[in-house]
Amino acid sequence: MSSSISRHRVVIVGSGFGGLAAAKALRRAPVDVTVIDRTNHHLFQPLLYQMATGVLAEGDIAPPTRDILRRHAHTRVLLGEVVDVDLEAREVTLETIGRSARVAYDSLIVAAGAGQSYFGHDEFGLHAPGMKTIDDALELRGRIFGAFELAELAREKSERDPWLTIAVVGAGPTGVEVAGQIAELSRRALKRNFRGFDPAQARVVLLDAVDTLLPSFPESLRRRAHRDLERLGIEIELATRVTGVDERGLDVVRPDGSSGRIEARTKVWAAGVEASALGARLGEQSGAAVDRAGRVAVLADCTLPGHPEVFVIGDLMSLNHLPGVAEVAMQSGRYAARSIVRRLRGDNATRAFRYRDLGTMATVARFRAVAWFGPVRVAGPVAWLLWLVVHLAFLTGFKNRVATLASWTVAFLGRGRPERTITEQEVFARTRGQAHQ
Amino acid sequence: MSSSISRHRVVIVGSGFGGLAAAKALRRAPVDVTVIDRTNHHLFQPLLYQMATGVLAEGDIAPPTRDILRRHAHTRVLLGEVVDVDLEAREVTLETIGRSARVAYDSLIVAAGAGQSYFGHDEFGLHAPGMKTIDDALELRGRIFGAFELAELAREKSERDPWLTIAVVGAGPTGVEVAGQIAELSRRALKRNFRGFDPAQARVVLLDAVDTLLPSFPESLRRRAHRDLERLGIEIELATRVTGVDERGLDVVRPDGSSGRIEARTKVWAAGVEASALGARLGEQSGAAVDRAGRVAVLADCTLPGHPEVFVIGDLMSLNHLPGVAEVAMQSGRYAARSIVRRLRGDNATRAFRYRDLGTMATVARFRAVAWFGPVRVAGPVAWLLWLVVHLAFLTGFKNRVATLASWTVAFLGRGRPERTITEQEVFARTRGQAHQ
Repeated sequence: MSSSISRHRVVIVGSGFGGLAAAKALRRAPVDVTVIDRTNHHLFQPLLYQMATGVLAEGDIAPPTRDILRRHAHTRVLLGEVVDVDLEAREVTLETIGRSARVAYDSLIVAAGAGQSYFGHDEFGLHAPGMKTIDDALELRGRIFGAFELAELAREKSERDPWLTIAVVGAGPTGVEVAGQIAELSRRALKRNFRGFDPAQARVVLLDAVDTLLPSFPESLRRRAHRDLERLGIEIELATRVTGVDERGLDVVRPDGSSGRIEARTKVWAAGVEASALGARLGEQSGAAVDRAGRVAVLADCTLPGHPEVFVIGDLMSLNHLPGVAEVAMQSGRYAARSIVRRLRGDNATRAFRYRDLGTMATVARFRAVAWFGPVRVAGPVAWLLWLVVHLAFLTGFKNRVATLASWTVAFLGRGRPERTITEQEVFARTRGQAHQ
Repeated sequence: MSSSISRHRVVIVGSGFGGLAAAKALRRAPVDVTVIDRTNHHLFQPLLYQMATGVLAEGDIAPPTRDILRRHAHTRVLLGEVVDVDLEAREVTLETIGRSARVAYDSLIVAAGAGQSYFGHDEFGLHAPGMKTIDDALELRGRIFGAFELAELAREKSERDPWLTIAVVGAGPTGVEVAGQIAELSRRALKRNFRGFDPAQARVVLLDAVDTLLPSFPESLRRRAHRDLERLGIEIELATRVTGVDERGLDVVRPDGSSGRIEARTKVWAAGVEASALGARLGEQSGAAVDRAGRVAVLADCTLPGHPEVFVIGDLMSLNHLPGVAEVAMQSGRYAARSIVRRLRGDNATRAFRYRDLGTMATVARFRAVAWFGPVRVAGPVAWLLWLVVHLAFLTGFKNRVATLASWTVAFLGRGRPERTITEQEVFARTRGQAHQ
């Protein structure tokens, strides 16, 4: 362990899977680490859909970053949004509620991730919240459970039906998972809760512009997921483009070219991602290419051209067509950390980042999932159990594992949804939407 | 069980302790019940301070009212704010996001409760959130944990200290409990979380205009609670009036008449309550007296003068100087339900409502509480255990009991605070405050 008065300073932008993996890998390195994020938590994004549908609480999937890293004596965590990087001066600028500060680095790991993309139609977001943040999930939770509340107040069927129709745009893993959970909660969790209608009649419509669901999965598993979703009663409309979103529903263009309309008061947007705006700033200054989704083309060692001290990892990185999944973020984060340590030891040989694909899984409903590891394909209850074990293992913190397992027992073996609280925030959001009528 | 085509209609306004107790007591009665509340949940208010300080999640203390009542076949639950009561027409008017509806009753139970009172200074609320709703607790959670985040960003002590000072206004049970929990979290839960300061240095100041804390408790228990709070390091300023609240702190007038100033970025208001505005409407129409706190003077059987079909119960009722506690609300709710059933059986004899005082308790910190049942007074670990058992017993739902016990184990035996997630909602609230600088 070398140590000196002025230690090598590593700044990590982002406390998602990539940033956190890098920080953890640097625990015993002779460096001072600063982790900067605009939230106080590490978000376990793959379970966000369960928070949106009432299975889990915020704390279960969003432990405080500084608590996770509390035993990393040489690591500090700062709350703030990194609004700029100065590659010349080797400084990042962070902002927190109007206060701005600059933090100097010797090595920089940019793991700022990606947000929701509405493909140039940001106005859709007012009516169709995304699935990227704790606030998105809180708002969706309020909208989903609130829609059933308003259906109970409806005087006639024509008023009630749009409240009982939920449209999910995007049929990747997130869209499939959230659609499945909404169908399940309407069939099971809400049983006996209403007097004016049967919540099991709720329509869940899953849409995608592409002509398949789960495009990253092999054909056999796609077919299986398609069948499982249909058995749950979910209507699947593929090769269908969304051309408008408003308070009352969606305008679509169907595969035959005809225009259509889906009356749905509740919309969930799980369709596209757009990398952090920091990508564009890094591209401008370094000359690195930035793709349509805002991702930065990095060298084989995940660094910016001409800036070996700057690593861009995870969802913000464009390299070898790697997908924007947690596993890529974590592996590239650990890789960047190891590269920094090697260089400090005087080893400047470039080793290319190699991604080891550990498999992909998506859960369709309780006891139903699809999973895929190289040649191995699994579906049904076995895949679901696998999904359960893997997600429990990756959750941060023993307490969160116990609490999550308890909530899953209640939700999947029982019929409960422990987290159905609607907060004012969401009522306001809906009222805002209502003003458009 | 008598039953007829047009059953007797009971409308219950409010799903707090009083309203819910009334609804439950009517389960097997030959009546149709409508419960109306502006939230979708029954709030277990006595544990709200634990949500605000990161121990519990929303779902633990706010289960959906309609789920609690799902097996009450003749009970429906409507989401809406009751904005008016028409005693002549026997109808209530409810509003939900711009939609308005009237609901007719044969018997009415008004259990609309009380909100926070700033004693004519509602502008204090912008900087000092109350402790009455789930949203209050979410906002306070964000402000409390957010203050430590901002302390870590401070460049010097003069900037940091106000972020590390938390003022709690009001030294009744809620104020005592929230002050105790904030002190504990700063001493234990945040250990090792910061690099620029020691969170145990945080100052917690508990203020009250009255010259004692816990005024409803016997002298010996007050002294004990006072000593326990001081041992936790809490500064107690009694007989101290708050004359101003702003972004940066509080203006106070101390017992010697001198003006003072407490620099505290985080303020919690637990000082006063004000009954629902429905109280005033009922007073206007019936001629019943309405006291300064907005409570309606009812007859000995909890009904409005001249309106035996209208019961006013819980925090909205003024009767025999009964305190605004859960037990009064529950007992008066059950009493109103029984009165309605008796009358339907043809028994119109008036029986006065008699409150059976089952005791009072307040928890100061982990392993420290005070409790009081008639002549019996208990303090310390025994009172704390009693507090724990009683609160677990009264929580609604088996799952919530298990989850809460798990969270308590983590928080009180361990050092964890499972719920520390700060949401955008709270950041916005703070930014709003910040604009005043």
